[in-house]
Amino acid sequence: MHSPEELLALYEQKFNSSNFNESPSALYDPVKHIMSIKGKRIRPLLLMMSCDLFGGSVAEALNPAFALEVFHNFTLVHDDIMDNADIRRGIPTVHKKFGINSGILAGDVMLAYAYKYLTDIPVVHIPELLRIFNQTAIEIFEGQQLDMDFEKRTNVAETEYLKMIEYKTSVLLGCALQMGAVLAGADQENQKRIYDFGLNLGLAFQIKDDYLDAFGDGEKVGKKIGGDIVQNKKTYLLITALQAAKGAQLDELHALLNNTNEEEKIAGVKHLFETLGVKVIAENRMNQLYDKAIESLQSVMVEAPRKELLLKLARAVHERDF
Amino acid sequence: MHSPEELLALYEQKFNSSNFNESPSALYDPVKHIMSIKGKRIRPLLLMMSCDLFGGSVAEALNPAFALEVFHNFTLVHDDIMDNADIRRGIPTVHKKFGINSGILAGDVMLAYAYKYLTDIPVVHIPELLRIFNQTAIEIFEGQQLDMDFEKRTNVAETEYLKMIEYKTSVLLGCALQMGAVLAGADQENQKRIYDFGLNLGLAFQIKDDYLDAFGDGEKVGKKIGGDIVQNKKTYLLITALQAAKGAQLDELHALLNNTNEEEKIAGVKHLFETLGVKVIAENRMNQLYDKAIESLQSVMVEAPRKELLLKLARAVHERDF
Repeated sequence: MHSPEELLALYEQKFNSSNFNESPSALYDPVKHIMSIKGKRIRPLLLMMSCDLFGGSVAEALNPAFALEVFHNFTLVHDDIMDNADIRRGIPTVHKKFGINSGILAGDVMLAYAYKYLTDIPVVHIPELLRIFNQTAIEIFEGQQLDMDFEKRTNVAETEYLKMIEYKTSVLLGCALQMGAVLAGADQENQKRIYDFGLNLGLAFQIKDDYLDAFGDGEKVGKKIGGDIVQNKKTYLLITALQAAKGAQLDELHALLNNTNEEEKIAGVKHLFETLGVKVIAENRMNQLYDKAIESLQSVMVEAPRKELLLKLARAVHERDF
Repeated sequence: MHSPEELLALYEQKFNSSNFNESPSALYDPVKHIMSIKGKRIRPLLLMMSCDLFGGSVAEALNPAFALEVFHNFTLVHDDIMDNADIRRGIPTVHKKFGINSGILAGDVMLAYAYKYLTDIPVVHIPELLRIFNQTAIEIFEGQQLDMDFEKRTNVAETEYLKMIEYKTSVLLGCALQMGAVLAGADQENQKRIYDFGLNLGLAFQIKDDYLDAFGDGEKVGKKIGGDIVQNKKTYLLITALQAAKGAQLDELHALLNNTNEEEKIAGVKHLFETLGVKVIAENRMNQLYDKAIESLQSVMVEAPRKELLLKLARAVHERDF
């Protein structure tokens, strides 16, 4: 088996901006711009680790791994337009730098490239990989729509919120792991188990994201705490608080949402998150989802030592405070 | 073999808005809006006719036929945003009715659905169909970029213009025909010939579009003649005129491009198109492309009578005055 570092080295060795056409440059410069942001490669890594877990050929997993990275970046480009975001990881977003039309078209061509690399694999696996990927892509677009819908609503139930983050972000992690399993020839039962591992870990990860914005250590998280609170962003914490608060506390919460004093607002909302039990609810939900993820991984039918790398990764995700 | 009417009846019987999910409605209502515009179904029809030509099962061609229609409509949705177009075939464009974000996301999910239906075919054909489709999709996005690039340039060579319309519109016609051939088990030689038939017919069609805007009969074309001229749209005629005009005629052309009197402008530009020989150049180019298309079709190795339906369709496209 290969360490995550070895897998990522193989990946970086193979892929760079030469994996796209050069011309017309007005189309491909924006693609190269977003692809130049070197993220954590979590989706390619999960795909390769899963393939390795089930004893598959990591070399055959490289193209679909790149496909998922291209696809993920495509969603960022289009989401940034929809969210009117100017900055991503410290550099201007594609539409900010190149214009909205370039953002739309660069995203479109990236989606086509994702399919191109996804299917540049041994033909026997193409139909199954495509089926999983199409389903996932459709869910992701539905998740983005739910997210936009929720921003306009005053009350969103926890189950609705969980469905949204499942579709918008977690299914792609499950998809990455399942694809690796398919490439390694794993059976459907094991595919389902490794998929569920990724799905639940992704949900826990997403709630942690919301949680750290309110209760993290600014120095460790690397950004100012309370950014979501200031923006009234419908996080897991806020939607849970809106469901839990009654009477005077609900009035207080609504007043805080309209408070323009940032410090007061952050402190007040965090205090309410604690007194309403929202902080504990979030912690319990994360633990429950993490346990579910680990249970799924444990049930995968390969020898236990092979699972150590993914277990370690899951533990790191769960325990992160940044 | 089946008549075009029979093929279209099969198609209409199978596909309607129930071929998309229902929810979230904010995502799928825009999809249904654009799909409700009943176009000429030229791409599905070409795919089915080609499959029929080579003796394939038309039933197996239905899903990819729908995929091409979904894909084509997706490009219209995103192109309309980029072109800032308010109306398409008499109804509001998707982004005009539902907003730009809805237009972007509805387009994205349509592209995923296109891949879903494209690959809902006997597995043996999936890799080949995907290869052709991915290549075509990438070319179409490159063509749209070239089109946008050209709008900002003063001089565009004829070969550049032909490359742009080839990528932006003609490759999808070639792709439709080649896919039908693949599904019917035609060999690569025949695939290439039927592809070239579509490609060249598409080019002739596109130039005809430009031509009819200037020299068509308004009653037959169904819209006011000279719309492209008024907008200084870089049509085949205008780019050829800009290349051909020298000295006083070039000055006159530039003056006309800035003339705000629509009637004067249309009459003046049309007059220049004639005196510069642009009208004849366009006619010759269309005839040449049409002849090339027919030659390709004639070289397809099936009995001549089987080609009659496609020949008739090509002739209708070539001789249309609307």
